Amino acid sequence: MRQSELYTKTRKTLPKDEVAKNAKLLLKGGFVHKELAGVYSYLPLGLRVLKNIENIIREEMNKIGGQEVLMSSMQDPAIWEQNDRWDDKKINIWFKDKEGKTGFAWSHEEPILNMMKHHVDSYKDLPAYVYQFQNKFRNEPRAKSGLLRGREFIMKDLYSLTRDQVGLDKFYGEVRNAYENIFERAGIGDKTYFTFASGGLFTKFSHEFQTLSSEGEDTIYLDKKKKLAINKEIMTDEALKEAGLAKGDLSEEKAIEVGNIFKFGTGYSEKMGVTFKDENGKENPVFLGSYGIGLGRLMATIVEVLSDDKGIVWPESVSPFRVHLVELEKGLGEDLYKKLENKGIDVLYDDRDSSAGEKFNDADLIGIPLRFVVSEKTGGKVEVKKREENKEEVVTYDKAIGKLL
Amino acid sequence: MRQSELYTKTRKTLPKDEVAKNAKLLLKGGFVHKELAGVYSYLPLGLRVLKNIENIIREEMNKIGGQEVLMSSMQDPAIWEQNDRWDDKKINIWFKDKEGKTGFAWSHEEPILNMMKHHVDSYKDLPAYVYQFQNKFRNEPRAKSGLLRGREFIMKDLYSLTRDQVGLDKFYGEVRNAYENIFERAGIGDKTYFTFASGGLFTKFSHEFQTLSSEGEDTIYLDKKKKLAINKEIMTDEALKEAGLAKGDLSEEKAIEVGNIFKFGTGYSEKMGVTFKDENGKENPVFLGSYGIGLGRLMATIVEVLSDDKGIVWPESVSPFRVHLVELEKGLGEDLYKKLENKGIDVLYDDRDSSAGEKFNDADLIGIPLRFVVSEKTGGKVEVKKREENKEEVVTYDKAIGKLL
Repeated sequence: MRQSELYTKTRKTLPKDEVAKNAKLLLKGGFVHKELAGVYSYLPLGLRVLKNIENIIREEMNKIGGQEVLMSSMQDPAIWEQNDRWDDKKINIWFKDKEGKTGFAWSHEEPILNMMKHHVDSYKDLPAYVYQFQNKFRNEPRAKSGLLRGREFIMKDLYSLTRDQVGLDKFYGEVRNAYENIFERAGIGDKTYFTFASGGLFTKFSHEFQTLSSEGEDTIYLDKKKKLAINKEIMTDEALKEAGLAKGDLSEEKAIEVGNIFKFGTGYSEKMGVTFKDENGKENPVFLGSYGIGLGRLMATIVEVLSDDKGIVWPESVSPFRVHLVELEKGLGEDLYKKLENKGIDVLYDDRDSSAGEKFNDADLIGIPLRFVVSEKTGGKVEVKKREENKEEVVTYDKAIGKLL
Repeated sequence: MRQSELYTKTRKTLPKDEVAKNAKLLLKGGFVHKELAGVYSYLPLGLRVLKNIENIIREEMNKIGGQEVLMSSMQDPAIWEQNDRWDDKKINIWFKDKEGKTGFAWSHEEPILNMMKHHVDSYKDLPAYVYQFQNKFRNEPRAKSGLLRGREFIMKDLYSLTRDQVGLDKFYGEVRNAYENIFERAGIGDKTYFTFASGGLFTKFSHEFQTLSSEGEDTIYLDKKKKLAINKEIMTDEALKEAGLAKGDLSEEKAIEVGNIFKFGTGYSEKMGVTFKDENGKENPVFLGSYGIGLGRLMATIVEVLSDDKGIVWPESVSPFRVHLVELEKGLGEDLYKKLENKGIDVLYDDRDSSAGEKFNDADLIGIPLRFVVSEKTGGKVEVKKREENKEEVVTYDKAIGKLL
């Protein structure tokens, strides 16, 4: 794409109330626009990153047998009342319409279970794994962390319905692996740790995936050798023992929760009457698991963790383009641009009438991992530089393209 | 995909309040689930159709220079107040939170213009064409037409910002062509007519794309020869004259509005202060156009128009799968299933333990345009039948596959 045709510009002025690094960089780079506290729109560059993240997650969900759906945002109070989760005193983040006739979903356990009643009769219909990329609404009292804590945000939520605890445990392990793949592919695998966390009503522990960052809202205690952590919220001698962790091996760290997985067991199914006939014709409640990743939060975490003082440094897997082609004299980039496009390589071509300094600053801010510069100085060749390195190399077009194929 | 693994089933019982044919068929086939009046979730088969429709539209939007974004649902009242469209007395379909601090977007003219203020300074920044696939909320008093009139629905909304009326008119024509391509590709081109409709405050006419259907809520007067219609709402002698239509050539028809395109001119930009510097440094308001297609409504229209008494008949372009492979004896379809998958052909393989009758009924209901049947009777060959035809043909696997490549 020609940068002269991209309608967004990098910005110098920011909303006054914006304090989070992730939001500042994403706003400056023209990735997002702020609508309200905790509410952001995705502009073309940001949407490209979001879609790349979505595709990584989709591939990993499909690999473990997930079937994609898209549930509505508007929800029926009657369904939530069955589990006593409609009451504002119980769930204090609901957005509801004025008349209280509908709520805008902050999660989907109840609607998924209710929908499943029509499709699960017998043990033969289980297991079923259903997921979606869907817009959640949560009336968070504090929304000052940019895209890390949204009041509106796209979530991948996966739900497992299994016959028994064994099936739930097995799939839970598969999701853990899938999540590890996702965070690895998204470039933050080495900073992300499987973490014991609060289990709520139905199970002793849930688990979180926590990415080390000074901007994190969570505090975890990490055993780096075991690559295992425990959330401060549940840190007791008993919990440590059950998690197989020893106090002396742990360091206190700030971290961002980039994913969580949760076993609900049969609690909700019993209340909502979601049952299946077993081999003997007896009705049993299904076992429910619930597994979330916030896409905006993951994008923001990548920005928090991988940016430098010049701007964002996208991993190749989620970058809006593979190459940022910068020409320093008008028209000098045309030939290479066409060659790259012909090879099907996604390239942002800076063909604007701007100074070299402005172009380099914008390229650093936008953070595409590979920068190609053509100028009179490169004389028919191209200067190749990785975003996170300082060394440049002048090579032929063919060699530069060859590395990308 | 193996049908035995698809978690949805075809359904025989329907919600009591469901009267619309499109919703009945989509519910029976397991394409959607009803959450509330006018609120539907998309199940795996339905989501596949939705994504196919989305991709057709995306291709046509990109061809005319559209840049994809994703705006938030939650909106800032202050932005809408600038145009006097926050007041419930002016816009009576808002869903707002209890405290009136945010509204859930029913359209995006104001947020798009507000966002554009950060990116449009000079005439060089125009034109800009921005579109999205985004969830709209409209508190419709009557929502009894299934997916034809949703209270929550995904819309493709495109906005054009141009320097002047000439630019607006030119792009308006390009959108018209793009919309004609979309409806043609979606299989309803021959029943869909460009229609003069009410223009509102800023322009004499808007235009709708109306698809002939007895279930349509609109009445249009159609000149079949000219392939041009006028909405009953604006039918006056003067309007007929301006549209170039003669009363005697028109037939009265019921129709579904599947798209609409609208010229706002500078009305909103002036109120909101969205201006650009022209060649002489003078500030001018941008010209706005707005262009919508409801994806669920388009899906529902295809169902209304192309189904028969046995079920849905999807056009190949939007069908959830290209082939429905039905085996009548256990395991007989495995070989052909693998061959089709290896060729990258999207196939739903009915490997269930069901009767032939049940399988055929489900295949007709689900409506994949091509049915392959393997049984002992076909003896190593396959019986090929188109959904909308009655004649069958028994051919070799290679010949059946060859037709699909």
